[in-house]
Amino acid sequence: MAREFMSKGRLEAFSDGVIAIAATLLVLDIHVPSTHGEGALARALGHQWPGYVSYAVSFLTIGIIWINHHQMIERLRSVNHSVLFLNILLLLCIGLLPFSTALMAAYLTHHTGEGLAAAIYAGSFLAMSVTFLALNYYTLLARPDLLHGEITAQQRMSLARRGGVGLVPYVVATALAPLSPYVTIAICGLVAFYYALPLAGLPAFGAGSVRRP
Amino acid sequence: MAREFMSKGRLEAFSDGVIAIAATLLVLDIHVPSTHGEGALARALGHQWPGYVSYAVSFLTIGIIWINHHQMIERLRSVNHSVLFLNILLLLCIGLLPFSTALMAAYLTHHTGEGLAAAIYAGSFLAMSVTFLALNYYTLLARPDLLHGEITAQQRMSLARRGGVGLVPYVVATALAPLSPYVTIAICGLVAFYYALPLAGLPAFGAGSVRRP
Amino acid sequence: MAREFMSKGRLEAFSDGVIAIAATLLVLDIHVPSTHGEGALARALGHQWPGYVSYAVSFLTIGIIWINHHQMIERLRSVNHSVLFLNILLLLCIGLLPFSTALMAAYLTHHTGEGLAAAIYAGSFLAMSVTFLALNYYTLLARPDLLHGEITAQQRMSLARRGGVGLVPYVVATALAPLSPYVTIAICGLVAFYYALPLAGLPAFGAGSVRRP
Amino acid sequence: MAREFMSKGRLEAFSDGVIAIAATLLVLDIHVPSTHGEGALARALGHQWPGYVSYAVSFLTIGIIWINHHQMIERLRSVNHSVLFLNILLLLCIGLLPFSTALMAAYLTHHTGEGLAAAIYAGSFLAMSVTFLALNYYTLLARPDLLHGEITAQQRMSLARRGGVGLVPYVVATALAPLSPYVTIAICGLVAFYYALPLAGLPAFGAGSVRRP
Repeated sequence: MAREFMSKGRLEAFSDGVIAIAATLLVLDIHVPSTHGEGALARALGHQWPGYVSYAVSFLTIGIIWINHHQMIERLRSVNHSVLFLNILLLLCIGLLPFSTALMAAYLTHHTGEGLAAAIYAGSFLAMSVTFLALNYYTLLARPDLLHGEITAQQRMSLARRGGVGLVPYVVATALAPLSPYVTIAICGLVAFYYALPLAGLPAFGAGSVRRP
Repeated sequence: MAREFMSKGRLEAFSDGVIAIAATLLVLDIHVPSTHGEGALARALGHQWPGYVSYAVSFLTIGIIWINHHQMIERLRSVNHSVLFLNILLLLCIGLLPFSTALMAAYLTHHTGEGLAAAIYAGSFLAMSVTFLALNYYTLLARPDLLHGEITAQQRMSLARRGGVGLVPYVVATALAPLSPYVTIAICGLVAFYYALPLAGLPAFGAGSVRRP
Repeated sequence: MAREFMSKGRLEAFSDGVIAIAATLLVLDIHVPSTHGEGALARALGHQWPGYVSYAVSFLTIGIIWINHHQMIERLRSVNHSVLFLNILLLLCIGLLPFSTALMAAYLTHHTGEGLAAAIYAGSFLAMSVTFLALNYYTLLARPDLLHGEITAQQRMSLARRGGVGLVPYVVATALAPLSPYVTIAICGLVAFYYALPLAGLPAFGAGSVRRP
Repeated sequence: MAREFMSKGRLEAFSDGVIAIAATLLVLDIHVPSTHGEGALARALGHQWPGYVSYAVSFLTIGIIWINHHQMIERLRSVNHSVLFLNILLLLCIGLLPFSTALMAAYLTHHTGEGLAAAIYAGSFLAMSVTFLALNYYTLLARPDLLHGEITAQQRMSLARRGGVGLVPYVVATALAPLSPYVTIAICGLVAFYYALPLAGLPAFGAGSVRRP
């Protein structure tokens, strides 16, 4: 019974499953309008533009956390119970995104509740980032023996130091939500595009530098 | 045609799929409230707190059954028709959790039906645990030839003896449901956190001791 | 560019995904009743028993087609465009089962439309079986060069001969639907339990004999 | 830390997940009608035939993009950040198909809005094809070093030249939508069947020639 505690392969498969499903469920928030009359469908579809914007921002953000999740797991040579538990907490937060995205889409253009909805939207990204950071810090700082041997202490410290930076935009986006939900979703969108584009020099969500072959 | 009956890999892939989807579908029970007026969204979101609690408890519980499922499958060197059938029964029970979770969320704070909803909620965890135990017992006691050779008869007996213990809290939670649905969901939540935290010394759902590297 | 046309691994992964999702979406047809008053929830939950029965029958049937799908794919040493296309047709039929199951659940106890709903329910299983058989026959009879070499012509003929037998119960269940939807769902349920239990000597859906280690 | 940037395996697993879920969610657009009276269910089910047609066309089209996605990824020996980002954009477009399919199904037989719905339907296929082509061109033309070495410059040029051809039918289908939504869905259906049937000599979505063993 000297096999490793849990194969990384199955951890990745389960995580990929939850992440892929959460991303694909986002579309259920975009509704087919029920309309009659000339031009009514175009107006109704135009009216629900917050749904398209929040779909795109959330889908890209989920895609980016997936990339970073992969990079973090790749650094590990084995996993233990705490890694599994922290990973389940991370997936629990990712699983909430279809709800917070639907809330953002429904209230962005409202005159009441829009600030709270935006705070919950950015807050759900913040919660996802915090659990990601917890998992990352756990392996970098508390249990470096779970990492591949060729990762030096200096590299670990460097990764950890840069880790917290990824939280900053979501803290700002959540804090500004009462002022303007548009600013909040704009910040979330900019974060997604910044990390999605290969311009990004900073590590997304503290996941470590993006190595390019 | 001497290849093994079914590769464990595909059994794991299918099980991971169903488990990941069941966990991610839980979010569909958290609804975006339709509100108007100052503070109405905050009140409406606060009002549906049973949805958040039951989401968290169910997601963690599904995560824990996934960990234990992996450990059980890892002990096997091959699978047969009965393992596949019992596994499908287990997945059938896991697939019902989005329903029982939604039921719990909808009725927890009701004044009628809340006991029945709680009994069904804890009962669905109990059904999941029973089918898990059946699968576990089948491989440990009835067909130890399906296990890896290095697992001794003593280890098998020890795993089997501890197996039934995992059912006890769900039996209690189901039995107490008519008295108080809050006690029921609290027990289910405590079970989830107990096994999720690395403090846990007892095997979850009879899955065997948690080995830590 | 002498690598094989498509790895069996990814064909299995995609098929497992669709099959697992179709099975897990079945639960969305079981609704949380909206009730008030003493005993109302129990009555409402009892009233929707057709939903539980059709959930169980459909979930088991999907589980069995998954087992048989695996056995068929395992016989292949490589896949070609026709295998992929026939497999997509099979998945298209499996993907319809959440609809036909919901239809069956909604109309089983109705006084009008119940025969049509039952015919569509059994018919969707029949369509799944027919596309499965088409895929099976294609590899056994038309392109045996895609099979592993150790499968003899005699074995192929034997598998093919037994293949059509799996259709018979679904033809009968569909034909009897106008007489009684209860008979239809009973036949579908018996087929599921027959193949699920290890008693089954006949190949399910013509997938070939179930080898037991 | 000389391991490759990201294993192709996990890229495929995540993509397969999103593609499989998008295909399986299509069924949620086919509703169980609520009817009473003799023959009412048959009429109601017949009335929603656009739902069945658009389900079939979209499911087949998603199946074909999956085949082509696999062939494109198989040509790669490693992936970089841009490949991951373009792939996420592709998945974002695929994830929208359940919405555009539901829109098409709801409006095909309407007298207002049907042209716009059809344009969005074909347009969503076009967007998917364009992102697919962008990913394909990126690896063929901008970063051939990511490809397996045995693919010659001549083969790359040939694949790229044929690539744009796959867009033409969707451009036509989108442009003709204001004239007739039936023509639009017919073109989309013909494309699906053309590439699904092994008659197809042209590469689907510019994915490269279909090699047959």
